[in-house]
Amino acid sequence: MARPKNDTFLRALMRQPVEYTPLWLMRQAGRYLPEYCETRKRAGSFLQLCKNKDLATEVTLQPLARYDLDAAILFSDILTVPDAMGLGLYFSEGEGPRFERPLREEWAIRDLAVPDPYGPLRYVMDAVSEIRRALDGSVPLIGFTGSPFTLACYMVEGGSSDDYRRVKTMLYERPDLLHHILNVTAQSVVAYLNAQIESGAQAVMIFDSWGGVLAHDAYQEFSLAYIRQILDGLIREKDGEKIPAIVFTKGGGLWLESIADSGCDAVGLDWTVDIGSARARVGHKVALQGNLDPSILFASPEVVAREAKKVVDSYGHGTGHVFNLGHGISQYTSPEVVTALVKAVHEHSRQYHQAAA
Amino acid sequence: MARPKNDTFLRALMRQPVEYTPLWLMRQAGRYLPEYCETRKRAGSFLQLCKNKDLATEVTLQPLARYDLDAAILFSDILTVPDAMGLGLYFSEGEGPRFERPLREEWAIRDLAVPDPYGPLRYVMDAVSEIRRALDGSVPLIGFTGSPFTLACYMVEGGSSDDYRRVKTMLYERPDLLHHILNVTAQSVVAYLNAQIESGAQAVMIFDSWGGVLAHDAYQEFSLAYIRQILDGLIREKDGEKIPAIVFTKGGGLWLESIADSGCDAVGLDWTVDIGSARARVGHKVALQGNLDPSILFASPEVVAREAKKVVDSYGHGTGHVFNLGHGISQYTSPEVVTALVKAVHEHSRQYHQAAA
Repeated sequence: MARPKNDTFLRALMRQPVEYTPLWLMRQAGRYLPEYCETRKRAGSFLQLCKNKDLATEVTLQPLARYDLDAAILFSDILTVPDAMGLGLYFSEGEGPRFERPLREEWAIRDLAVPDPYGPLRYVMDAVSEIRRALDGSVPLIGFTGSPFTLACYMVEGGSSDDYRRVKTMLYERPDLLHHILNVTAQSVVAYLNAQIESGAQAVMIFDSWGGVLAHDAYQEFSLAYIRQILDGLIREKDGEKIPAIVFTKGGGLWLESIADSGCDAVGLDWTVDIGSARARVGHKVALQGNLDPSILFASPEVVAREAKKVVDSYGHGTGHVFNLGHGISQYTSPEVVTALVKAVHEHSRQYHQAAA
Repeated sequence: MARPKNDTFLRALMRQPVEYTPLWLMRQAGRYLPEYCETRKRAGSFLQLCKNKDLATEVTLQPLARYDLDAAILFSDILTVPDAMGLGLYFSEGEGPRFERPLREEWAIRDLAVPDPYGPLRYVMDAVSEIRRALDGSVPLIGFTGSPFTLACYMVEGGSSDDYRRVKTMLYERPDLLHHILNVTAQSVVAYLNAQIESGAQAVMIFDSWGGVLAHDAYQEFSLAYIRQILDGLIREKDGEKIPAIVFTKGGGLWLESIADSGCDAVGLDWTVDIGSARARVGHKVALQGNLDPSILFASPEVVAREAKKVVDSYGHGTGHVFNLGHGISQYTSPEVVTALVKAVHEHSRQYHQAAA
């Protein structure tokens, strides 16, 4: 369990000196890559792709073969946990993920139980182990989960939603029920992430995709409190190596201070925040990950390089920055511009890390 | 052109003493009201409702007949301006607004011209005059527009969008073209709002519904700069009465300081910002309007009253607050809870305005 050959990503997360700003991309193994589409076709469906450890490993490694990325991320879905709780995950064309049995009745909510990560979620752990083997000590592997609130949105709504009407009605009308869902889900996530760490994940990330739709006080009570509960329960060191944890609330720019106080090692930023200002606010406490607008990747390689450099410049001198997009890479991205992006970040950032040479 | 009998809303916008916190609701004349649905049915379509001054007046006044609201807002749509520019607005069931001729070619962009507000937009001015007559000096009438960036999103995308791919590609790849669209649109909006003011609007609001999807620096350059251009061109006083202007960027909580510096009299807030913190940041410069999460209205009248009081308490003592939702009222809202909301805000806020009694 030695450190990976390229441990730049882990060092940046722990705010230790690095030679350049490391980079990975949310959803880097995805539909913008023709080789991914080919493997997915072979798998039959997205879920079958997640559940087959060989194919999941194959797609996890595809972006690393193309680009000089500094981390791999487990190929999976945030909804594996509620699926393992018995809600019946399926994907309908054009509609995104859906649950056969969304949480609509009090008895169903009271019946929720923590799934065994080595039971119905064993396929995830198998994929983690297999990916670690395949990576062969090259770059670190990131494990991940959805935040309890984000998972609860899907569990209560039954799919994605424009207005989150059902979950917000529950939040204001029956907060006891929502707290129960969030509590069981947070416990499930702790067990799930710890099993990923035991299986080989070298860093973990909590995706709070929908926390940003909450009012400021509701965010604290219904999203961040459960993220904190997870962080309190996580394995933070394994075989003498620290396991850093990243928290990303999309739309959470107003709440950076409280996110940075949650016990995480790094905070993910979407593109609405200036990363330099974010660093001034919380950079003495945590590393920052982000935050190029993924839409910039629709432009030419020259524009992409220019805008990526702006993010690097805004962060400025010293460690503590992991470059990423402010959200997942779009399926409409041309694979060629990603080459330009990686090059721009790696080369341009060296000047800010001279002390580490 | 005397002040309306109830000028609480106008005084709060100008941070003059009031007896209670005034209140109106974005989209207060809307589908949650059965009488609105009845009139709309009679009109044939949403657009025909906007274009018929008698029916537009009827629906504008419906929420005022039901509730003790402190302002009326012109019933219209933000897309009337691009429609008058020749883009061909239509509404398709379940898909929202669409344009027959979205801006996809450089020649079409270069051909854009400022529409005469008394030409193809005369129906809006007729509605404004008619509504003023019908209000008969009871409460003030708010005129409104979409922000140039928000209008440009629709004009370039051709409708609403998940990722704003086309307009953002133009922003990064051909900023000159987008600046041209924004400039012509800003000039059009100045003429449009000034005509609304000449026709009787006593305050104006700029809805920047999509500015919040931009990166921080792109927001300044492509949205706020054009809002400032509008504010610079507006009639700010008529017949000795100030015409206050409100700017609302949904998702703009991180940028409040620069919005407050744009030359507006009031800043609209969505529900992700704590209004007390917002006041501490910019309350010495502008009034604040907002900011209850509209989803709270799915809960019981008791919960609605409790949460509304929290917003009033968070703003605290003194004038400068216009109560509103943080976004338009949902069609799924029960009309009864709005009664509870209005009562809670009016009664609970009196203690914070004793000095004005």
